[in-house]
Amino acid sequence: MPNISKRGSSIPASPIRKLVPFAEAAKKRGVHIYHLNIGQPDIKTPSSALNVVKESNLEIVAYSHSAGFESYRKKLVQYYDRFEIKVSYEDIIVTTGGSEAILFGVLSCLDRGDELIVPEPFYANYNGFANTGGINLVPVTAHISNGYALPPIEEFEKLITPKTKGILICNPGNPTGYLYAKEELQKLRDIVIKHDLFLFSDEVYREFCYEGHEHLSILRLDGLDEHAIIFDSISKRYSACGARIGAIVSKNKEVMATAMKYAQARLSPPTLAQILAEATLDVPNSYLEEAFVEYDGRRRLLIERLQAMDGVICPSPKGAFYAFVQLPIDDAERFCKWLLEDFSYKESTVMMAPGTGFYVTEGLGKQEVRMAYVLNKEDLSKAMDCLEEALKVYPGRQ
Amino acid sequence: MPNISKRGSSIPASPIRKLVPFAEAAKKRGVHIYHLNIGQPDIKTPSSALNVVKESNLEIVAYSHSAGFESYRKKLVQYYDRFEIKVSYEDIIVTTGGSEAILFGVLSCLDRGDELIVPEPFYANYNGFANTGGINLVPVTAHISNGYALPPIEEFEKLITPKTKGILICNPGNPTGYLYAKEELQKLRDIVIKHDLFLFSDEVYREFCYEGHEHLSILRLDGLDEHAIIFDSISKRYSACGARIGAIVSKNKEVMATAMKYAQARLSPPTLAQILAEATLDVPNSYLEEAFVEYDGRRRLLIERLQAMDGVICPSPKGAFYAFVQLPIDDAERFCKWLLEDFSYKESTVMMAPGTGFYVTEGLGKQEVRMAYVLNKEDLSKAMDCLEEALKVYPGRQ
Repeated sequence: MPNISKRGSSIPASPIRKLVPFAEAAKKRGVHIYHLNIGQPDIKTPSSALNVVKESNLEIVAYSHSAGFESYRKKLVQYYDRFEIKVSYEDIIVTTGGSEAILFGVLSCLDRGDELIVPEPFYANYNGFANTGGINLVPVTAHISNGYALPPIEEFEKLITPKTKGILICNPGNPTGYLYAKEELQKLRDIVIKHDLFLFSDEVYREFCYEGHEHLSILRLDGLDEHAIIFDSISKRYSACGARIGAIVSKNKEVMATAMKYAQARLSPPTLAQILAEATLDVPNSYLEEAFVEYDGRRRLLIERLQAMDGVICPSPKGAFYAFVQLPIDDAERFCKWLLEDFSYKESTVMMAPGTGFYVTEGLGKQEVRMAYVLNKEDLSKAMDCLEEALKVYPGRQ
Repeated sequence: MPNISKRGSSIPASPIRKLVPFAEAAKKRGVHIYHLNIGQPDIKTPSSALNVVKESNLEIVAYSHSAGFESYRKKLVQYYDRFEIKVSYEDIIVTTGGSEAILFGVLSCLDRGDELIVPEPFYANYNGFANTGGINLVPVTAHISNGYALPPIEEFEKLITPKTKGILICNPGNPTGYLYAKEELQKLRDIVIKHDLFLFSDEVYREFCYEGHEHLSILRLDGLDEHAIIFDSISKRYSACGARIGAIVSKNKEVMATAMKYAQARLSPPTLAQILAEATLDVPNSYLEEAFVEYDGRRRLLIERLQAMDGVICPSPKGAFYAFVQLPIDDAERFCKWLLEDFSYKESTVMMAPGTGFYVTEGLGKQEVRMAYVLNKEDLSKAMDCLEEALKVYPGRQ
């Protein structure tokens, strides 16, 4: 029997995936699970956009241009303009989800063995793309004490080696919900210019900035045209995670020409979903406004409930729809498993993502969990009831 | 300005892509182009399947299971059973096109620097996935003299090194249209068992086998369960190239578990297109029968016309919808460019894929072109008129 690849066997099982069998067993026992573990919103995809797909007279589901429909890219230019991001349609390649945008960015800018500095905790799937690209993610640790703000820029500077090709941020952040301030982004700008690095910014939660804060794209920073690459997706803003439509956007022509070669090798992003994506750009603003009000309400409920729990530390996230929370527990993986295996309250329990999966540095995240507030307020409140009760009786409480 | 990756800059521009600007210029001059250069069929996607998408009451375009809808995978089991391919739904991961199936196969089974032996000419995009995976494609040359049959197995044996992890075939073949005989597949089986290699088979043209020939999947070969991995796609059989729904199928549990990790990193294959794909399995057989009759008619027309042209050598392809043809010309890239730039007949010309792009071995394919018979017979006949006239006046005729 031939051996599988070493790179394949080196991918650790994700802490969330490890919980899945326990969640399935809990369901079989009749326990209801409040899923705060994944970023799959319960908000409806805009029906007007879905109707465009349904009313399409498409007869052949053909390949699109490898960079995506030109009509869609031209409309995206106007969309970005609303955020004062000035790009042309040739600065955009439509990708199969934000996932593929990340992959194209990695492949186009980094070689095997190159390093990318990433503030941790970070979106766990970055590990998968790093594995595919054979690159190393070098973590710089953000801390709960200041709400996972950008670590001091000197910490980045210390990690720069001849192998370093760039810095990757997620803004607003998954899993922290942290929204970078202009000053933080300017520090990143200065360091990438100084060391001639790329700055990658995953900006898929752009619309979700709370408490009057505004999103600042790295594409708006002066002097960064050749350095800045953004990853985007319609998954979250239009609750269309399964569409698999994202984009890589950069004004660096060489990067885009290279990403285009990888785009051509996989032929085309999904055609049906591109029709949906293009139609989302005509969805009335009220859709995003309502979604925003809903998420903001959930956010406030979640923070209020968590901050009232003894021993729980919950910074107030200003963006996205996640909270990264410290609990008075011995071990997040054990606790999350125990919630599914040994606990229920009113025949329900809660599923969360253990913090360890979001760190590279060994030993970090053991008291942290990520919660995605993707449930309606009533369910979210019940999920918090479960958590509150669980923390009272968990044997590993600290 | 930071440098792009070496791997990105090392991808050569594909000979087809190089022709695109000339095709655009020809169109601007008012010249009609018969496109035989890409495998985008003109056959309609089954309307009954498209209607299932249109009539769906889906409200949230959510992530699917990373391996694809379980319902779809279970129906695929029955589909494969029709070809006497016995698999369970757990042996199937739904992928974003056949493209992603190839990528997952490469990543799961080969490490960087490992080698995969491939009969050439081969599907040019294999190069892109080899680049992404950092592996080396080692060509073994098939020849037009026997219609691009499997090269002698000794030729494979000579190329096996400690780095060799597998053999990749495309059956029926893109670009050759060659359909491997049972004896050829058995030789491949014996060699992969002998040397403990994987055997990858790209079988996306399974339905297109002509002259009464039957398709034999490598998954039907005895003793190959741990070695055989197939790549599949609905793109060609249901004329749904833009759906981007494929599959990787193997009975090797370790390979599938590893492919699943890569599948999880990219979250989900496209949801809307999976609805379409699942619905194709209920499309009446008459759809495929009619498509088959149509392609077979085109194939016969194409061969007849080509074989009647002086100096043209066209083996009779038994599968897929391509012919790989030798022309009496000095250089295929030059000829294909000349057709777009300097030639027209009745205000039309023909676009084909130069043979060089399908070979790794330098210097091969200079007199060959790939033609995809994806146009209706009337257009195909006019395309042949153009080619016939062009060969009479081409300055580089040999």
